[in-house]
Amino acid sequence: MRIKEKAERQYLQDVFTKLGFSAEDSDLLADTLVDADLRGISSHGIQRLAWYRRMIKEGTIKPQNKAKIIRELPGTVLVDANQNMGQLATVLATNKIIEKAKRTGVAIAVIRNSNHFGTAGYYTCLALKAGLVGIALTNTRPLVVPTNATQAFLGSNAFAFGFPASPHPFMFDGATCVVSGGKIQVHAKKGEKLPGEWAVDGQRQLVTDAEKAEDILATAAFTEGEQKGGGVLTLGGNSEANSNYKGMGNSLVIELLTGILAQGSISADTVSGKHDFSQFVMVFDPAFFGDPEVLKKDATAMLDRVRQLEHVPGKEIWVPGDREYRLLATNQEKGVLIDKKAYQEMKEIGDELAVSVPQSN
Amino acid sequence: MRIKEKAERQYLQDVFTKLGFSAEDSDLLADTLVDADLRGISSHGIQRLAWYRRMIKEGTIKPQNKAKIIRELPGTVLVDANQNMGQLATVLATNKIIEKAKRTGVAIAVIRNSNHFGTAGYYTCLALKAGLVGIALTNTRPLVVPTNATQAFLGSNAFAFGFPASPHPFMFDGATCVVSGGKIQVHAKKGEKLPGEWAVDGQRQLVTDAEKAEDILATAAFTEGEQKGGGVLTLGGNSEANSNYKGMGNSLVIELLTGILAQGSISADTVSGKHDFSQFVMVFDPAFFGDPEVLKKDATAMLDRVRQLEHVPGKEIWVPGDREYRLLATNQEKGVLIDKKAYQEMKEIGDELAVSVPQSN
Repeated sequence: MRIKEKAERQYLQDVFTKLGFSAEDSDLLADTLVDADLRGISSHGIQRLAWYRRMIKEGTIKPQNKAKIIRELPGTVLVDANQNMGQLATVLATNKIIEKAKRTGVAIAVIRNSNHFGTAGYYTCLALKAGLVGIALTNTRPLVVPTNATQAFLGSNAFAFGFPASPHPFMFDGATCVVSGGKIQVHAKKGEKLPGEWAVDGQRQLVTDAEKAEDILATAAFTEGEQKGGGVLTLGGNSEANSNYKGMGNSLVIELLTGILAQGSISADTVSGKHDFSQFVMVFDPAFFGDPEVLKKDATAMLDRVRQLEHVPGKEIWVPGDREYRLLATNQEKGVLIDKKAYQEMKEIGDELAVSVPQSN
Repeated sequence: MRIKEKAERQYLQDVFTKLGFSAEDSDLLADTLVDADLRGISSHGIQRLAWYRRMIKEGTIKPQNKAKIIRELPGTVLVDANQNMGQLATVLATNKIIEKAKRTGVAIAVIRNSNHFGTAGYYTCLALKAGLVGIALTNTRPLVVPTNATQAFLGSNAFAFGFPASPHPFMFDGATCVVSGGKIQVHAKKGEKLPGEWAVDGQRQLVTDAEKAEDILATAAFTEGEQKGGGVLTLGGNSEANSNYKGMGNSLVIELLTGILAQGSISADTVSGKHDFSQFVMVFDPAFFGDPEVLKKDATAMLDRVRQLEHVPGKEIWVPGDREYRLLATNQEKGVLIDKKAYQEMKEIGDELAVSVPQSN
C-alpha cells in the first residue's frame, strides 16, 4: 500500500511532538524518514518508527536533550549528541561544517553519544544542496564477521558519498558489508533463499536459509554477553581468495573514524552497557578545484559512459543513485510504499498518542 | 635474492640523478621505492624502475619539471605535477596539507598532470610521522570491469588509510578492485591458476588461466582505441548477488575524487592522448578529537580484539598493516627481496648509466 508524502510527514511530525521532541526537531526527524521512504530505502523510513519509540520508552533516546558543539577549529567540529536522535546532532554538525568549508575549503565533524542517524545519504544530500561534496559514516550494532573469524564484531557501518551530476547526483549510500541486515530480513519475509555469500554460522559455514540468517543476526546484534556464532560477511564474501579482507579493511576504517575517534563505543560494544553510536561527516567545496558546472558536466559524462558500456545481454549497468532517484520520482507522485506491518504499527502508535493515521491506497 | 636497503637506496639515487632528476628529487624517489620493497610491496618497488625509465625516455615523465602549487585555501591545495613523477608532487602536496591541518584541523590536496605515484601508503605514512591521520587515493590505467559490463573502464584505483596503533599503525593500502594487476602477474609467473573471482573475458566469463588474464589486462591497459574485452573484477567478484556494485561504487568514488576533481583524465582515458593520472590526499589531526595517546591505545585494543576473535581452526586473523610491518622488520635486517628479472634490469640500467649495481645474496 502507499501513503502520500505530505500525509506521512504530518503524521510523523505529530508523533514526534507527542513523544516529547520540540516542533523544530519533530519536523527534521519527520523529514529524514520521509526522505528515506521517498528514495525507496524503506528499511530506514517510517518502518523504524516503532523501534525509535521503543528506545525512547527505554530511555536510550532522550528527546528533550540538546546536541551541542564541544570544540571547534576552522576545519573541524566535535559534537555531543547528548543521547538524543543521531539525526538531530548530525544535521547540526553538517550545517556547521558546511559553513566552515565555504571558508576553509574542507571541514569534518565527529559526533559522539549518538544514536541511529537514519540514512547516511541524508547528510551528503545536505552538502549537495549547499553546493558541496559530502561523505557520511556511522558505526552500528555488531553484525559483521571479519575474515577467518567465526563471530560478529564489526558494524555494518554505512558509507555515503554524494557528488554533483545530472540528471541526479552520484549517490553511493549503503552498508560496507556485503548486504545490510535489512536486505536479509526482506528475503526472510518473502521466504526466499539468500542468493549469494551473505551470512555464515558459528563454524563459518555459508547460510542460505534467510530465517536462520536472521536469527544469527538478531543474536549477534542484540544479545549481551552471549557466545556469538556467525553473522554477515564483509564485501568479498566468505573466501580470502576473493579478498574479503579488503571488505574488512573498509569496515575497520569506519570503526576508527567513528567509535574510536569519538571515544565512544566501537560497534562490538554497543550491545552492552551504554548504547551509543558515533558518526563522521566530511564536506568540501568542489568550486575550489574548478568551475562547478564543468565538474558536474565531466562527472555526468563519465557516469553516462559507464551506463553505456558494452554489457551482458539483457542486463543493465546502474550507477550509484540511479535506483534511488528513479524511485524518488515515482514515490513523489504516487506516495511512498508501506508494508502491512509498518502500517499496523502506525495505527497502534496513532491510537496511543491520539494522532490521526494517514489513509493508504 | 636479496639486496641491502642501503645499497638499494644508493643505486636508486645514482640512477635517478643520471636520469636528470635533482639530487633532492633523486633521494625522495629512491626513498619511495625502497620503502615499498621494505614493506614487501615489490610490485611498487625497484621492479618499477625499468618502466619509469621507459616513460622518461618517451617523454611521458619530465624529470626537470617542478611541481607547483596552483591555488590554496586554509584547508585545500591544488597542485600541478607538471608531468614529473607523481611521488614528487604528492610529497609536496602532503607536506603542505600537514602544515595546514595543524592549524585548521583538516586539509585536502588534489594533484593534476601527474604520473604513477608509487604506493598510496607512502603518503599516509608521512601523515602518521607528523602525528596525523591520512588518506591517499589515485586513479590508474583502465583495468576494471563495472558490474554487468564486458569491458574495462575503471582504474584499479588505490586507497590507503593510516591510523596510529601499536606495535605498528593500522595501514590499509591497496587497489579497490578485487586484486591488483600485479597479483595476477605473480600467479602467471608461477604458472598458477587464479584462485578466486578475479578476472573475466569479453563475454564476462570467469578467467582462471593467469596468463590469459594477464593478456586481457595488457590489452585493456595499454592498447589505444582497440575493442577491449574483459578485465579485473570489482571487489565482490563476478556476481551482482555478491554486491559487486558496491565494489564499483568504491572505484567510482575514487574516479570522482581524482580525475574528475583534478580536471584531468579519468582512468578510461589515460590510454589515449595525454597520459596523466590524478591524486587526492587528505590529512586530519586526531589530537583535536582527543588525547592522541588515548586514541592510539583504544585503536590498538580494538585491533587486538579483532586478531583474537574466535576463528576457523588453522587460520589467522590479520589486520591491515600486519603483513607489511612483519615484512618490514625482516627486510630491514636481511635486505629486500628482488627477483631475477628485476635484478637483470638493474644491471642493464647500471651498465647504460655507469652506476654500480649492488651485490645480491
